[in-house]
Amino acid sequence: MAKEYVDISTLKYLLYDVHQLDEVLQQDRFSDHDRESLNLFLDSVKEFSDRELFPYFKEMDEHPAHYKDGGVEVHKQVDVMMKQGGEMGLISSVFDYDEGGLQLPMMMYTASAFIQDAANNHLPGYVGLTMGAAELIIHFASQELKDTFVPKMLSGDWGGTMCLTEPQAGSSLSDVATKAIPQEDGSYKMLGQKIFISGGDHQYAENFVHLVLARIEGAPAGTKGISLFIVPKNRPVADGSLVSNDVTTVADFQKMGQRGYCTTHLGFGDKGDCRGYLVGEAHQGLKYMFLMMNGARIAVGRGATAIATAAYHASLEYAKERPQGRKLASTGKKNPEQGQTLIINHPDVRRMLLLQKVIAEGSLSLVLLASRYYDLKETLTDQSEKEKYSLLLELIIPMVKTYPSDMGAHAVSNGLQVLGGYGFCTDFILQQYHRDIRIFPIYEGTTGIQSQDLLGRKLLLEDGKALQLLTEQMTQTIQSALQYDGLKKYAATLGEKLQEAAKVIQHLVGFAKKGDYERFLSDATPFMEYLSTITLAWIWLDMATNAKQALVTGKKSYTEEFYESKIHAMKFFFKYELPKTLGLAEVLQDDEVLTIAGEKEVFN
Amino acid sequence: MAKEYVDISTLKYLLYDVHQLDEVLQQDRFSDHDRESLNLFLDSVKEFSDRELFPYFKEMDEHPAHYKDGGVEVHKQVDVMMKQGGEMGLISSVFDYDEGGLQLPMMMYTASAFIQDAANNHLPGYVGLTMGAAELIIHFASQELKDTFVPKMLSGDWGGTMCLTEPQAGSSLSDVATKAIPQEDGSYKMLGQKIFISGGDHQYAENFVHLVLARIEGAPAGTKGISLFIVPKNRPVADGSLVSNDVTTVADFQKMGQRGYCTTHLGFGDKGDCRGYLVGEAHQGLKYMFLMMNGARIAVGRGATAIATAAYHASLEYAKERPQGRKLASTGKKNPEQGQTLIINHPDVRRMLLLQKVIAEGSLSLVLLASRYYDLKETLTDQSEKEKYSLLLELIIPMVKTYPSDMGAHAVSNGLQVLGGYGFCTDFILQQYHRDIRIFPIYEGTTGIQSQDLLGRKLLLEDGKALQLLTEQMTQTIQSALQYDGLKKYAATLGEKLQEAAKVIQHLVGFAKKGDYERFLSDATPFMEYLSTITLAWIWLDMATNAKQALVTGKKSYTEEFYESKIHAMKFFFKYELPKTLGLAEVLQDDEVLTIAGEKEVFN
Repeated sequence: MAKEYVDISTLKYLLYDVHQLDEVLQQDRFSDHDRESLNLFLDSVKEFSDRELFPYFKEMDEHPAHYKDGGVEVHKQVDVMMKQGGEMGLISSVFDYDEGGLQLPMMMYTASAFIQDAANNHLPGYVGLTMGAAELIIHFASQELKDTFVPKMLSGDWGGTMCLTEPQAGSSLSDVATKAIPQEDGSYKMLGQKIFISGGDHQYAENFVHLVLARIEGAPAGTKGISLFIVPKNRPVADGSLVSNDVTTVADFQKMGQRGYCTTHLGFGDKGDCRGYLVGEAHQGLKYMFLMMNGARIAVGRGATAIATAAYHASLEYAKERPQGRKLASTGKKNPEQGQTLIINHPDVRRMLLLQKVIAEGSLSLVLLASRYYDLKETLTDQSEKEKYSLLLELIIPMVKTYPSDMGAHAVSNGLQVLGGYGFCTDFILQQYHRDIRIFPIYEGTTGIQSQDLLGRKLLLEDGKALQLLTEQMTQTIQSALQYDGLKKYAATLGEKLQEAAKVIQHLVGFAKKGDYERFLSDATPFMEYLSTITLAWIWLDMATNAKQALVTGKKSYTEEFYESKIHAMKFFFKYELPKTLGLAEVLQDDEVLTIAGEKEVFN
Repeated sequence: MAKEYVDISTLKYLLYDVHQLDEVLQQDRFSDHDRESLNLFLDSVKEFSDRELFPYFKEMDEHPAHYKDGGVEVHKQVDVMMKQGGEMGLISSVFDYDEGGLQLPMMMYTASAFIQDAANNHLPGYVGLTMGAAELIIHFASQELKDTFVPKMLSGDWGGTMCLTEPQAGSSLSDVATKAIPQEDGSYKMLGQKIFISGGDHQYAENFVHLVLARIEGAPAGTKGISLFIVPKNRPVADGSLVSNDVTTVADFQKMGQRGYCTTHLGFGDKGDCRGYLVGEAHQGLKYMFLMMNGARIAVGRGATAIATAAYHASLEYAKERPQGRKLASTGKKNPEQGQTLIINHPDVRRMLLLQKVIAEGSLSLVLLASRYYDLKETLTDQSEKEKYSLLLELIIPMVKTYPSDMGAHAVSNGLQVLGGYGFCTDFILQQYHRDIRIFPIYEGTTGIQSQDLLGRKLLLEDGKALQLLTEQMTQTIQSALQYDGLKKYAATLGEKLQEAAKVIQHLVGFAKKGDYERFLSDATPFMEYLSTITLAWIWLDMATNAKQALVTGKKSYTEEFYESKIHAMKFFFKYELPKTLGLAEVLQDDEVLTIAGEKEVFN
């Protein structure tokens, strides 16, 4: 195992210096918090992660969660994560005081969950899903349902899950077929199957509260007929005790990675005795679920960022310690009489490490930015400002979910490569990160689905207003960067990319205007890569401008080398990553149609 | 498990139509073979792979090779692979008749090994390394050593290995420290440790013949002082029996993938009683090893190609059977009343499948082309023609090893993505391909090492003559393609790319001319990606031109759809893959130096 999995300095730098958490703290909701109290919280999370999460990372992979006798057995640290996590407020931290929460900003929640994910990505999901389920209940369910279910969830005694996917429907929620039959007492009889339910069952919770998408008998077809139900594993009865609610753990899914984080197949109502409780109004289930989706998608981006970060630190540590080969002499030869050099001195190894760094730290900055937008849209009182941050969040969300996942996987693969043959061996941890991170481009809507959301919905939102707002944000950064000679070149490049992007978008939107939606969306995934790469260039230019400012003004919270390393990383991103957009712009403007199904078989 | 793992039609099309195996067969060495006899051989290999390799693929992963009581236990099919493979001539097929071989062309060997690799990549390595070790002995060792070791290796009774890597040296062979101390009887006392030895020990061979790089006492430092030794696990003594030769299996390496293909750590001479037998002359070890390296590197490219191919077929099969979601209507909406569509009808899924197809089939064409160059350089009698194909082979070898490995891993990841959540589950096979293929960018010289070989050695070979020859080959294809209206556009594009590449190369070589070798090679890996992408565009244009010719002339061996699908794939490559070179050309001509170690710490 590596010795370190995150760089707390970079995390705090992004929180306070680049993304100005102090500004967010000025909102009423956060008036009890200040930098000092938040840092104490972060430190306690780091200490908890060092002690209870990180040391068990490898063994949770080696001894996966598994189905046994109708239930799922998980590692004992799941118990610690739920109970101690509950006590520390990790489940409730962002909720209001009167819901049992700490009223922490989303930025701080993201930062603290990032540390936990980086320490051991098999554990925080148990807490995260419980929080997500509780959030749905708090927002949309009746007071009685809240009182019945929420307190036990926030304490970590009961687990929570989200039950969307069904075997026959996959990601297509219009095909949800789980049935809910109204009963005289106001409850519903539930009947159906749900698959890929993370944290769906284990020996350390006395109950599970499943949030289930289902269709009330007679409801309209498609997503319009979907309602949301609380379906507990055990239902509370009049005397306050729990009785079995006919929820069966049918099986588990054994996976390539995240093997300590159980994935279950649940059956509801096999014996005809499963009760569900409607959340909010009938047929509004998808709307409720989607109101929570932004948080869930930030969480996926954050988790992938965390794995890429931990992998970066593990490979960096190896590169700093491993002697191998020699530096090239000016003759192009190597001198065998010379001593070995550390592999971190080989340019290609440095390239792979810097690539990991720009992806990991760039992704972290992106998820913190999304969290900042989230906080501002939730807490600002000025309606137009609220609307602005809401639109900005909507637009970047698909990228926040996708870039860290796709490029994080690429970063981890480069980390593995730094170790050579050892990277492939189970004695080293890189191969586990490589396996774990591969689910992130699939979680919570695959890359393909996110890309269609970005191009097909978000870009057109309010006649392109979200995009206009994002462009303004980028333009502000360009203006700031232009003040510094050393950054002018990069600011100008980003400006050119924005102009190019406007053309590309105009070209694509042309298909939508002609009603050719299939064509419009057929290259949504390359478009995602295109816009994300430009967005990350902005993220890095913003970080570099902030660093430059600190160096120029002398108002430094970190060493000079620290700031200069951020500027160096920005330059790396602009040299090695941003040029991808040249090819992608060509792909997106190429008029040849090759991926729309026609009559001819093209897979011969 | 999927039903099919290769497309034999495409394999035969590439062998006979695109790469003209019949022309190679006209050489004297192959006079006993014709298309019919070779097809019978291929069919028997496919039948053997269907029966003995493919059905055990998943269980070899689930029950990995493992260290036990001083040895390694492997799956029982290793025995079948060695013994039946030996009987079928799979170990000896390319050797001369008088060495016990079948005098098969390398093209046919590559095709047959490709089928085996695709069926189950955990098994053919046992046979392949035994063949490689035997080849070294046949070429460079004394008749006595040949007689002693080779027959038992070709029959599959004894295993063979290559022992290069040592714990302290990694890929840096100048640091090999295994000692060889001359003895009075002409043998050497061996002392040292070797790691990452594939197929180094198991219960199904009565002996192992290790080909070991070591340093004779007093030899010069660096690669100049390295000699090659045969070091058997058990050495034959006067009466013909075997006695232990003090070779210890110290441990095995447990790996993320290829878990049925054992990887060992061997100790030589722990008790001071390990004998080695010098192969050829002293201090020539590295030269001998490198003469075999081209074959080894084709084999790695071929193995990665095979995994990408099998993964493509598995995901294609899934996409053709899995209903999910609906096609977009011209309103941009989906109609829930409409029935579900198969996922192969979604453009993004088609894009991922076509991406896999162009990588897998393009890589297969590339490894067959390398095998063709190999055959021609070995068998042609005209010295200048021999030299020509030798140079062409030298130039493309690093790409042949790297492109299928790096891009094959990318292809497999896309195949996994096609399955969504199921792709991550062990009930489906994609995740195994994803794990297995990840070693290929590391095997036999990592991507970084291959890239330095390409840019630093091969491009400069004989004043750039190899590059000139390759450019001529590409230009010929462009000329042929220009004859067809439907291909003109693509031919012109490739022509432009060649001109651009000449500029990029001139720019880079400028650094070498100034003696700045570190700088020259610092972006060797992006250069590898750049030149490989152009080379693959050529490979695809060549295939499309051949297909077009068949369609136009009516001389068809396959259906019209078959040929058209190859042209479609070429267009896909030109639209979606070739534009990458735009960004890469910019990277390679950017003068900012960011990856050469300086005084400042850039990893903060």
